[in-house]
Amino acid sequence: MLFELIIILRPESKEAERKELKKFLEDTGIRYNETDLNGLPVIHIIENPHLLDSRIAEDFSAVNRAVRLSSPSPLAVQDKLRQKKKTISVKGHVIGGSSLTVIAGPCSIESYDQLRDIAFLLKRAGINILRAGAFKPRTSPYSFQGLGKTGLDDLKRVANETGMPVVTEIMDTRDLDIVSSVADIFQVGMRNMRNYPLLKELGKTTKPVLLKRAMDAPVEEWLLSAEYILKEGNENVILCERGVLNAPSCNGRTIMDLNGILDVMERSALPVIVDPSHAAAERSKVAPLAKAAVAAGTDGVMIEVHPNPHRALSDGFQALFPAQFEILIADLRKIRELIQSQEKR
Amino acid sequence: MLFELIIILRPESKEAERKELKKFLEDTGIRYNETDLNGLPVIHIIENPHLLDSRIAEDFSAVNRAVRLSSPSPLAVQDKLRQKKKTISVKGHVIGGSSLTVIAGPCSIESYDQLRDIAFLLKRAGINILRAGAFKPRTSPYSFQGLGKTGLDDLKRVANETGMPVVTEIMDTRDLDIVSSVADIFQVGMRNMRNYPLLKELGKTTKPVLLKRAMDAPVEEWLLSAEYILKEGNENVILCERGVLNAPSCNGRTIMDLNGILDVMERSALPVIVDPSHAAAERSKVAPLAKAAVAAGTDGVMIEVHPNPHRALSDGFQALFPAQFEILIADLRKIRELIQSQEKR
Amino acid sequence: MLFELIIILRPESKEAERKELKKFLEDTGIRYNETDLNGLPVIHIIENPHLLDSRIAEDFSAVNRAVRLSSPSPLAVQDKLRQKKKTISVKGHVIGGSSLTVIAGPCSIESYDQLRDIAFLLKRAGINILRAGAFKPRTSPYSFQGLGKTGLDDLKRVANETGMPVVTEIMDTRDLDIVSSVADIFQVGMRNMRNYPLLKELGKTTKPVLLKRAMDAPVEEWLLSAEYILKEGNENVILCERGVLNAPSCNGRTIMDLNGILDVMERSALPVIVDPSHAAAERSKVAPLAKAAVAAGTDGVMIEVHPNPHRALSDGFQALFPAQFEILIADLRKIRELIQSQEKR
Amino acid sequence: MLFELIIILRPESKEAERKELKKFLEDTGIRYNETDLNGLPVIHIIENPHLLDSRIAEDFSAVNRAVRLSSPSPLAVQDKLRQKKKTISVKGHVIGGSSLTVIAGPCSIESYDQLRDIAFLLKRAGINILRAGAFKPRTSPYSFQGLGKTGLDDLKRVANETGMPVVTEIMDTRDLDIVSSVADIFQVGMRNMRNYPLLKELGKTTKPVLLKRAMDAPVEEWLLSAEYILKEGNENVILCERGVLNAPSCNGRTIMDLNGILDVMERSALPVIVDPSHAAAERSKVAPLAKAAVAAGTDGVMIEVHPNPHRALSDGFQALFPAQFEILIADLRKIRELIQSQEKR
Repeated sequence: MLFELIIILRPESKEAERKELKKFLEDTGIRYNETDLNGLPVIHIIENPHLLDSRIAEDFSAVNRAVRLSSPSPLAVQDKLRQKKKTISVKGHVIGGSSLTVIAGPCSIESYDQLRDIAFLLKRAGINILRAGAFKPRTSPYSFQGLGKTGLDDLKRVANETGMPVVTEIMDTRDLDIVSSVADIFQVGMRNMRNYPLLKELGKTTKPVLLKRAMDAPVEEWLLSAEYILKEGNENVILCERGVLNAPSCNGRTIMDLNGILDVMERSALPVIVDPSHAAAERSKVAPLAKAAVAAGTDGVMIEVHPNPHRALSDGFQALFPAQFEILIADLRKIRELIQSQEKR
Repeated sequence: MLFELIIILRPESKEAERKELKKFLEDTGIRYNETDLNGLPVIHIIENPHLLDSRIAEDFSAVNRAVRLSSPSPLAVQDKLRQKKKTISVKGHVIGGSSLTVIAGPCSIESYDQLRDIAFLLKRAGINILRAGAFKPRTSPYSFQGLGKTGLDDLKRVANETGMPVVTEIMDTRDLDIVSSVADIFQVGMRNMRNYPLLKELGKTTKPVLLKRAMDAPVEEWLLSAEYILKEGNENVILCERGVLNAPSCNGRTIMDLNGILDVMERSALPVIVDPSHAAAERSKVAPLAKAAVAAGTDGVMIEVHPNPHRALSDGFQALFPAQFEILIADLRKIRELIQSQEKR
Repeated sequence: MLFELIIILRPESKEAERKELKKFLEDTGIRYNETDLNGLPVIHIIENPHLLDSRIAEDFSAVNRAVRLSSPSPLAVQDKLRQKKKTISVKGHVIGGSSLTVIAGPCSIESYDQLRDIAFLLKRAGINILRAGAFKPRTSPYSFQGLGKTGLDDLKRVANETGMPVVTEIMDTRDLDIVSSVADIFQVGMRNMRNYPLLKELGKTTKPVLLKRAMDAPVEEWLLSAEYILKEGNENVILCERGVLNAPSCNGRTIMDLNGILDVMERSALPVIVDPSHAAAERSKVAPLAKAAVAAGTDGVMIEVHPNPHRALSDGFQALFPAQFEILIADLRKIRELIQSQEKR
Repeated sequence: MLFELIIILRPESKEAERKELKKFLEDTGIRYNETDLNGLPVIHIIENPHLLDSRIAEDFSAVNRAVRLSSPSPLAVQDKLRQKKKTISVKGHVIGGSSLTVIAGPCSIESYDQLRDIAFLLKRAGINILRAGAFKPRTSPYSFQGLGKTGLDDLKRVANETGMPVVTEIMDTRDLDIVSSVADIFQVGMRNMRNYPLLKELGKTTKPVLLKRAMDAPVEEWLLSAEYILKEGNENVILCERGVLNAPSCNGRTIMDLNGILDVMERSALPVIVDPSHAAAERSKVAPLAKAAVAAGTDGVMIEVHPNPHRALSDGFQALFPAQFEILIADLRKIRELIQSQEKR
């Protein structure tokens, strides 16, 4: 009964107006029942309601309101309806399970040495997954655009040496093969949440996809982007919140949208990871936002850490120093433990 | 050196254009120095820069940019600059100190009985301050508008019987005396954050003022509203975040703006309380938002609780049931303890 | 049949769950019919639906969706439903009729001389209504707050000398008598759109009220504020758009919300005036925005003009020079004429 | 002197703190001068300032403020600085010149017949450019995704038969060749404004690119996306506004951002086209928004028109009926004439 739709007609609408609507529905291949709601005429659509945009329906003069009763993204919400939490396994680490997922690393791969040093530090700290970008979507064409293929080679080498699973961004359908040869998880950045050709291609693979929410996307639209991947057959979607744009916070500053995170967790069983580094957009706020995200019950965090943030080629103002990072992770694990003991009751 | 301003001139500007600006400054009573920044002509304003709107300055053809170097709300930020945390004492409870402040109660006073029952329950749970509204700002004129003076009488009676300090909303300068006769803390609701005549009157009292942030107010503007109160001589301002409006969250849904909260805590030493009930706007999200707010290091929470939320005359969909509330408070206290032990390091 | 509401139940809900809802409705004094929508159980509320918040209804476990079919502000929309345009007469000028309304003047009254000079200039240009503020709501307590009572005296004198009707702002219920002794139209500024005690007092008068839209108010909420005035018996509400806050426009910059203006014109027959000065927030954009507003079919404009904008005590960066203003008004009148000839077809 | 940057130091900063900053600048390859601004220490960066993010600079403890004095998108603003309006010629029609550009057509290509019929109607109405999409970015994977390659074939055939130049959307770098074989102008949809690999590829062609603004993009970021294309050597960028997302307008409703349009016209000489169909998102608002856009002085409009909007496979609720469209175009041309006569003065 997904996608169910009811169309409430204006009681004063004329027969000719109603016929116009019904003819349209029939021509479009939508089956419906006419019924009566205590005097209000109603058309109830049970078959193929996804073929009908509710705004199109409301455009007919006979119609008062068209109301959708079910989710537009059935695959993204199905496990939730079955009360089954979705878990995703990556080289032995389970995302969406009882233990906190920590993904960390530099924003960009800058050199083999930089990456290896930070990766071994993260491995020692027990971090689950290494993040590092070779293809970097940057607002300005004059900013560092990532090392590209060379960066991927560095990442592959470091992944092999540390044995850590890696997540790295893909921006272009033409890069599918080379990124796939390195990534354990594909990252879709916020700017590509609506890059549907890319989402479709990723849906044809079996590798997990970490899907970042665009800064202006309602939760419904984020789930529809997940649906693009799920519909092609790939069930392994990880949702990642990285902050939303907001009027009162101006200057391009973002807000970590905990309300949206809780909303998506109420609707979907897909794992939800929070990226407090981008949501904070400055170093001093990363730790309190990360603590808040864990206290709110999310599945994990993705954090930028850099051996020397001032010299980072991208996002340096928000990357943590290694020492800060190690303290934060220990703190987060204790908060997670406390929260889980509270939720078990 | 508060309010310092520099005006960077266009190198190609003509002498006549510069004279126009300087004459204006002199006429306005602003003292300045002309100086040179490596070839760039600059006017440096040290005296009375608050008399000059930077947009007015940029309106002169000679000017490239006018840049403010200091805070427009000097009183709201002064303690922070001195690294002194502001604390406010209310009947023995210290707000802004080491212990978590918990303010709780029903949205509206509905009757003496309703209020007394919930108040004694809160007292037993060790809640610090009772909240309850007699004057209710409601979006629709057809919604319940509060019991008004009768409600204040009920609140006074319950305050006396329980010995709890109370916070209640004031909406109209004409109500100052009657609200003052009951309230230990004046609440200024989000809709009145820009009611400057009211803020000025409250600034002339000595009672603490809990100043809610308007849903579209940047942090700078929130602090300027605090400045209205501080400037009149009342030092006891408590800042209260209740969620901001946000494009991606539509439908009037708000977001708890943790980024803004952290921002205001970095700028000002005034105590910061979070209202997760309004920020959540639905019951199921109140607890995780409250936990997140405490994990992020805020001074306390203000939570709506009602003996029978479905029958509440206002905000029933976000009020907690008493049993939920008691569990939440116990949880929040443990999180506070953990966070404080982490921050002490 | 205003305020009609239908509650669609979950087909799988248990009888006990439905009883809980129905008992609640009965206790609240809401009459309803139980009905069936092609198998979907539905509760149809015809009497007193305004007593029920749809979110409260959706809070019951038996409920899938609660859908409102009619406007929450019946008085604000009633003339539109009857296809009758509302007109308001002020000293011979008709607002909402076929001729364009032009309201103009300085932001603040700065002195009798300043005001008299600009007023006679406006009178000669055929401007319909003089605007000038004595009470100024300013974001910073350090900004010029208006001349207050002295300013009102100046305004009264100039109004008498020119014979022009005047609109001036009221911010405080305590000022009702003194403002009323001067104003032909009360202005409610955007910061007071939610000052309900003030709206109620103005609703008890018979003078027209120019109600500015708050920068974050949805159209629905703007109409509800109008409803506060209408409900008390004052039918003479003029809606005034002054720009909305918007994520992509940051820096406190506003956007003239033509979509919202068109929306309110589709719903309500109340006259709609646009304030391009505040919507522009800088002089260079005032003229094109004003032209656009007239081309879109609004009833008039309210424009800030000042003999010497650089020396204005408030909003100088957006006030027009008198010469610019005179050209603009002539241009607007021609655009109005063209648009009206196009609409008549 | 594009990209100039000044860094204002804190007077109380220690020598060691300043050295840390200066060492960083030197290592990054940024040349600077140290200077003094009336007692305030300042670092003035003239060479390679684009290598430095102002937030990175402000991250150093020695720094008070880093202020950029010039545009981050030098190519997009260069003609404006030279007071030269950019014009783009497409099969004899000049975009950005004195005559209004009208681009029109259906949202999607649905069949050869549908497209041919509407195209001949547009040709007769003197429309300059035909729009029609073969690749459709849709929020839901269940919505019609466009006819793809088949649609392009239809478009090519109709373009040949009518002789009209066409604009059509490209979503995927892999489609460059096939789209290029049909399109006279590439359309980059709002969802791809940040698809940098695509922008770079289009920058390597010589065909005009119509670049839609993302619904949450500040003007600065829109120009930076244009800069991606310009930097690769393609000078023919047409900016297209299609509405922005805005808090008060909720429900995914957009606002035509005239303020942003005026802003981009003040900064850049690139032609600016407005798409009132998407900005309106419902048929009844298309005409007034189009009139407003023309009255505000933009270079043209892009409008959706469909032989039978109710049966359109996409965006039917906002497409005009042919008869409405023809009246609107005649009206727009008269408004344009009037506005141009007013601007010439």
